[in-house]
Amino acid sequence: MSVFPSSRRGFVAGSAGLLGAAISAGARPAHAAPAIEPFHGLHQAGIATPPQGFTSFAVFDVTAGTRGALQALLQRWTAAAAQMASGEAPDAADRDDAPGLPPARLTLTFGFGAGLFEKDGRDRFGLRARRPASLIDLPPFAGDALEPARTGGDISVQACAEDPQTAFHAVRRLARIAAGDARIRWAQAGFLSPRGAGTPRNLLGFKDGTQNVNVADPFALDTFVWSGLEGPAAMRGGTYLVARRIRLAVERWDAVVVSEQERIIGRRKMSGAPAGGEREFEAERFDRRDADGRLAIAADAHVRLASYDGSGARILRRGYSYEDGGVGGYEAGLLFMAYQKDPRSGFVKMFGRMAGSDRLMPFTTHVGSGVFAVPPGVAAGGWVGEALIG
Amino acid sequence: MSVFPSSRRGFVAGSAGLLGAAISAGARPAHAAPAIEPFHGLHQAGIATPPQGFTSFAVFDVTAGTRGALQALLQRWTAAAAQMASGEAPDAADRDDAPGLPPARLTLTFGFGAGLFEKDGRDRFGLRARRPASLIDLPPFAGDALEPARTGGDISVQACAEDPQTAFHAVRRLARIAAGDARIRWAQAGFLSPRGAGTPRNLLGFKDGTQNVNVADPFALDTFVWSGLEGPAAMRGGTYLVARRIRLAVERWDAVVVSEQERIIGRRKMSGAPAGGEREFEAERFDRRDADGRLAIAADAHVRLASYDGSGARILRRGYSYEDGGVGGYEAGLLFMAYQKDPRSGFVKMFGRMAGSDRLMPFTTHVGSGVFAVPPGVAAGGWVGEALIG
Repeated sequence: MSVFPSSRRGFVAGSAGLLGAAISAGARPAHAAPAIEPFHGLHQAGIATPPQGFTSFAVFDVTAGTRGALQALLQRWTAAAAQMASGEAPDAADRDDAPGLPPARLTLTFGFGAGLFEKDGRDRFGLRARRPASLIDLPPFAGDALEPARTGGDISVQACAEDPQTAFHAVRRLARIAAGDARIRWAQAGFLSPRGAGTPRNLLGFKDGTQNVNVADPFALDTFVWSGLEGPAAMRGGTYLVARRIRLAVERWDAVVVSEQERIIGRRKMSGAPAGGEREFEAERFDRRDADGRLAIAADAHVRLASYDGSGARILRRGYSYEDGGVGGYEAGLLFMAYQKDPRSGFVKMFGRMAGSDRLMPFTTHVGSGVFAVPPGVAAGGWVGEALIG
Repeated sequence: MSVFPSSRRGFVAGSAGLLGAAISAGARPAHAAPAIEPFHGLHQAGIATPPQGFTSFAVFDVTAGTRGALQALLQRWTAAAAQMASGEAPDAADRDDAPGLPPARLTLTFGFGAGLFEKDGRDRFGLRARRPASLIDLPPFAGDALEPARTGGDISVQACAEDPQTAFHAVRRLARIAAGDARIRWAQAGFLSPRGAGTPRNLLGFKDGTQNVNVADPFALDTFVWSGLEGPAAMRGGTYLVARRIRLAVERWDAVVVSEQERIIGRRKMSGAPAGGEREFEAERFDRRDADGRLAIAADAHVRLASYDGSGARILRRGYSYEDGGVGGYEAGLLFMAYQKDPRSGFVKMFGRMAGSDRLMPFTTHVGSGVFAVPPGVAAGGWVGEALIG
């Protein structure tokens, strides 16, 4: 069981005795201003928040020379993030780079890469001893084609909003505020198909997320996502992000007949039902066989290898499709974003099972990667990562 | 005055005697199904159509060996485009690559590059003599940094929709249908900020489009956009597209103080009013001077050089912002899309005046370019470009 109240709203409502009225004052209930997601809370927003339509994700390299400068950067970023999420005007000390853009459910979610704790063998900020054990370096996987320029980095910023420009300008403003202390290493924008029509479809044309961890289920979040008593105190209520930029060979995929696409995925394209089944949300029956005795969901089908098998390899996926145009073909794919209690029992276990054998692999190329310790949420007056970096 | 009925809706309503009932049957009135833009009409949709939120633009190189194969490609594309715009299921001969995506006001707008009429000195399709005089090769401009792979091409496809995935999948489906006859040369996705909040803002954070040609003004469209009696009969009701991929140095721009940004643009950032003025839509008074006798809108301000001066250099801009992520900084900017009666009196005249002296130029780099003859609209049973290519 969790040591925390389980939802942001529940926390705000019941927390007067814990972190005090400052948080309640900083968070607007969703019903009063539906385009605002509260910045302050026990967990950072943008994780269990129902997915917004767009993301602007960036990973920064920190160039600040001292821990004090790093702390000051995080304090400036926290203040700017809280202001932008609130939709209120910036204070006199800062400026609004794009006045008139709506907050549009903006969330800003910060994570810390291994480079903050140790870089090129140097303990540059005196933080080496504080590196959480769960903040691992990912092992190499079969098929990896990681570009160094899109891999790693010191601080991740995931901006999500219902408007792409709101998300983009939010990260740009953080980049401006960071001048001299951090600079963008790599960035990626993404989108979801509209959620009103049910489970969003990915760029393969399939519904994606049917079996995802339910962000409305506090038990599932505590089991699979939020860091708890097993980790360092400074990470409790936080989580770990594995980000992968996964290029999809969309032209080659489109040339595959739909029946074969369905065999590769293990689900029906139109309905989203498991192969051999009828309805999107029915359980995947991996032992089901067709009239000829063949497995309905093939042994190497994507959903079989990605599925939760009770071993603990379950993650909260919060990915976005991307289309960056391209030359001679499309540069498009999935900005895979997965939150989990521990990448060793989450992404590494799941993807290790898939990388060599998933029938979908020939259509995917992992070209960027990062792992980040996502600290817990912030109380009004506090700053992101205070317990870990302070 | 125009030789055509001036609006698509007006045309559909009043055209029974001209192109017949087939068009009326193919076009759904906007009020009956607000997420549908009629595909058939006198003009192609996606030009005078009020801008949708997203674009997926692609330029194809034609690889078909004969004019017959080119015609067959355009026929297949026309049928698929009409079906996708209608939101109806594809017929048995084709398939829906992403079932369940909404039509979301999808428009598909086709244009023909010079390469269709003559390529590498060869008249490969016997069309050389039909090349419209207005389909020029652009002259070089000061500051051009065009990448050959993002420049030129034979057929442009502009997909616009209120959903980015609908637009992207529409072009991908055309690419699949084209297999063997055409392939993507370059592609670019883009977005607008939400239009409910007034004039959209570009990635410079300024309102963009205040002085644009009004698509609700049929006289302006006939004067500046639609090809008429001055051009070849096969282009009447068509227009010419100049597309430019313009990279914006957003980090450098963000480092400029707002008062200097306003001097560079010649407008106020918050209100959008002309420098020295008060309201967004008031006329630009280029002779206005401040108390010190200086021009309120500087001699090299962007809006002064871009403005319509009565000389005919006026274009319908229908551009989209893009953010392609990036490495070591942002790859972001403007997919500039301008429709005009004749690029010689439109884009070339306007941009020729700006390229050397616009104060905004140091923040912009033109990295891609194309000019396309956009044929008129299609009657049900017809195909795009029939009069020009048939």
